[in-house]
Amino acid sequence: MAVGLQVPDELFPVEGIRLAATHCGIKSDPAVKDLSLIEIAAGASIAAVFTQSHFCAAPVILCRRHLRAQPAARYLLINSGNANAATGDAGLEAAAASCAAVAAAGGVAAEQVLPFSTGVIAEPLPLEPIRGAIPRLVDALAADGWLAAAEGIMTTDTLPKAVSARVEIDGRTVTMTGIAKGAGMIKPDMATMLAFVATDAAIDGGALQSLLGELVASSFNAITVDGDTSTNDSCVLIATGASGVDLESGGEALRGALRDLFERLAQAIIRDAEGATKFVEVEVEGAASDADARSVAFTIAESPLVKTALFASDPNWGRLIMAIGRAPLGRIDPRRVDVYLGDVRLLHRGLPDPDYREASGQAEMGRSEIRIRVNLNLGAARIRVWTSDLSYDYVRINAEYRS
Amino acid sequence: MAVGLQVPDELFPVEGIRLAATHCGIKSDPAVKDLSLIEIAAGASIAAVFTQSHFCAAPVILCRRHLRAQPAARYLLINSGNANAATGDAGLEAAAASCAAVAAAGGVAAEQVLPFSTGVIAEPLPLEPIRGAIPRLVDALAADGWLAAAEGIMTTDTLPKAVSARVEIDGRTVTMTGIAKGAGMIKPDMATMLAFVATDAAIDGGALQSLLGELVASSFNAITVDGDTSTNDSCVLIATGASGVDLESGGEALRGALRDLFERLAQAIIRDAEGATKFVEVEVEGAASDADARSVAFTIAESPLVKTALFASDPNWGRLIMAIGRAPLGRIDPRRVDVYLGDVRLLHRGLPDPDYREASGQAEMGRSEIRIRVNLNLGAARIRVWTSDLSYDYVRINAEYRS
Repeated sequence: MAVGLQVPDELFPVEGIRLAATHCGIKSDPAVKDLSLIEIAAGASIAAVFTQSHFCAAPVILCRRHLRAQPAARYLLINSGNANAATGDAGLEAAAASCAAVAAAGGVAAEQVLPFSTGVIAEPLPLEPIRGAIPRLVDALAADGWLAAAEGIMTTDTLPKAVSARVEIDGRTVTMTGIAKGAGMIKPDMATMLAFVATDAAIDGGALQSLLGELVASSFNAITVDGDTSTNDSCVLIATGASGVDLESGGEALRGALRDLFERLAQAIIRDAEGATKFVEVEVEGAASDADARSVAFTIAESPLVKTALFASDPNWGRLIMAIGRAPLGRIDPRRVDVYLGDVRLLHRGLPDPDYREASGQAEMGRSEIRIRVNLNLGAARIRVWTSDLSYDYVRINAEYRS
Repeated sequence: MAVGLQVPDELFPVEGIRLAATHCGIKSDPAVKDLSLIEIAAGASIAAVFTQSHFCAAPVILCRRHLRAQPAARYLLINSGNANAATGDAGLEAAAASCAAVAAAGGVAAEQVLPFSTGVIAEPLPLEPIRGAIPRLVDALAADGWLAAAEGIMTTDTLPKAVSARVEIDGRTVTMTGIAKGAGMIKPDMATMLAFVATDAAIDGGALQSLLGELVASSFNAITVDGDTSTNDSCVLIATGASGVDLESGGEALRGALRDLFERLAQAIIRDAEGATKFVEVEVEGAASDADARSVAFTIAESPLVKTALFASDPNWGRLIMAIGRAPLGRIDPRRVDVYLGDVRLLHRGLPDPDYREASGQAEMGRSEIRIRVNLNLGAARIRVWTSDLSYDYVRINAEYRS
């Protein structure tokens, strides 16, 4: 039921990156991949952001620790089907043991392996199937393994999510490819549920980390399915340097291409959101501050009543007013607020637009891709966030998740 | 589908209060009451709290204005089927005209009439049906009209909600009876979607207002169906004084009885929540501050993933950990957190309780009334809040609301 999302048909290899995925046995269906490995060439820079959950998972704790070590990480090991969260010391030991197994097979130190997990919370990570699969994963590493890796990290996703782009800069080609997963428990806070992006641009560690912060702000931190933040959210950006193009020579062309790729990957998660029948952009402009813009946008995007109206294709815009009305805000003047569905103005300066006709609102709500636009007419701050509707299938998927 | 809620079989009249309700024509079904009138004897005290929505409805604006006038209000006029919200000056004029009509029929000033509306947002209030019904409403006023009035304020409620109590104090009887409505768009902020409580205790205006603030804190401000706050929330407490018992002589017996009545009325809204199959109490204790306790409790109570697990009777307590993990908090130490389902301990000091068995969790989740208990083991602050599950019917009711 993904909205406007297809399996990507071409993913560009990124020089310095090889990938593989397999079924190791965490999931019951042998046809389903549940373990992915990403190899990074020596000399690459790596930046990462993680969930802000107080109960972050064991692999998140270990990742943060390993990222402080030198030399830099050379492998990312990602399992799906088990989150290794709320598993205490045993969970940390299992994650460390899986890193050690990759390190032995790859000839690097255990600290050069970053572990990632996604799936059911509070169940022990099955270590043996993971260890057993690592030798064949290492053998299978290939530059064209991006799609397999994207499949290997899926949970309730209906489609693998991957985006690839090339940009020409001063006669040199910079390549960037990324994968992501996630369909529910999605309101990333500093990062989302597993995204891995690599580019052959040359960007050193500190600059890469601050670039990643900027990139997630307008992508993974601007999406919500259900307002629920995972214990395992992780987003990694790798710069192998193989193209020789750095941030300075790459300029806005490079940043813009990365921004676009991050945005498309984040949107792919919303297009494949659990039970989604609509892909919804909420744009808030004219806010007095960034925080106010964000507050109004996320209050609309997470309101169960707005989301059920979206599912019903019902231009019940009283619910938009309700949501704006309850958003925690620094400044608002209801008599200045304009609200649009697509290009149809519903509310003008706080009152129903006299020219509004239900048929126009109905036509906008009938689309599978919907744009809600709010202008607070108070300042210059704006934000765009993306969300999905709340359908019977969202309830079904999440009521049946463990059964 | 209300959980453990019945039509009340006995509602005690409160001396000084008369009520009536009728079908005036705002709703299409002539068998459904949509207009209620409450008459208050001269000399009574009245306190009220209202929605904090930036887009509060016309009747809320007018109520606030009329409550500042002297002499005190003598009538409450409540319509269902139309919220008279986002209706601008025309909405204010319609509300004022309905007050004027009651004032003319009752021989009081228009400022002595408080208007309340609940229903669809952003549609004009049909004034003529209301005006036409007022003479027969005034004629029908009766001391035993509480149930009729409770029926007249219903929207998506499946049952009228009313609670009545008597308490003996020094040989004198104090009576208190209240009605409420609301089933969706429920996360009151200072008050909820229409509750009217009267007692014959003698409490003057200032003391009554501060008492009302206390009472809603542990009742209507401790419930949530969907986190959505209405434009029309209003809660009124009337003290007619007829019993002669005041706050001082009534002491804790009087306060406790009122607290209990408010709590039961608020719980009635959750028991009848849209699509509810479960009535859920979330208790958070051991928090470092009241704000922290409230944050954890409401994050659990509003999490779509927790609510779908409740609907599925699935003891998927990883989702409880997720919700605690994402709650905005001053202080938390994950290694101190205990989590219980009923009396079954799931998490002990941040880790799965080794004695926990899925069958015990399953048995707790199978009940229609569920208690989730979190101890942060950090301080003395605690809170109890009440919520419902997220079912197919919640989606159906809110997808079909206007059709």
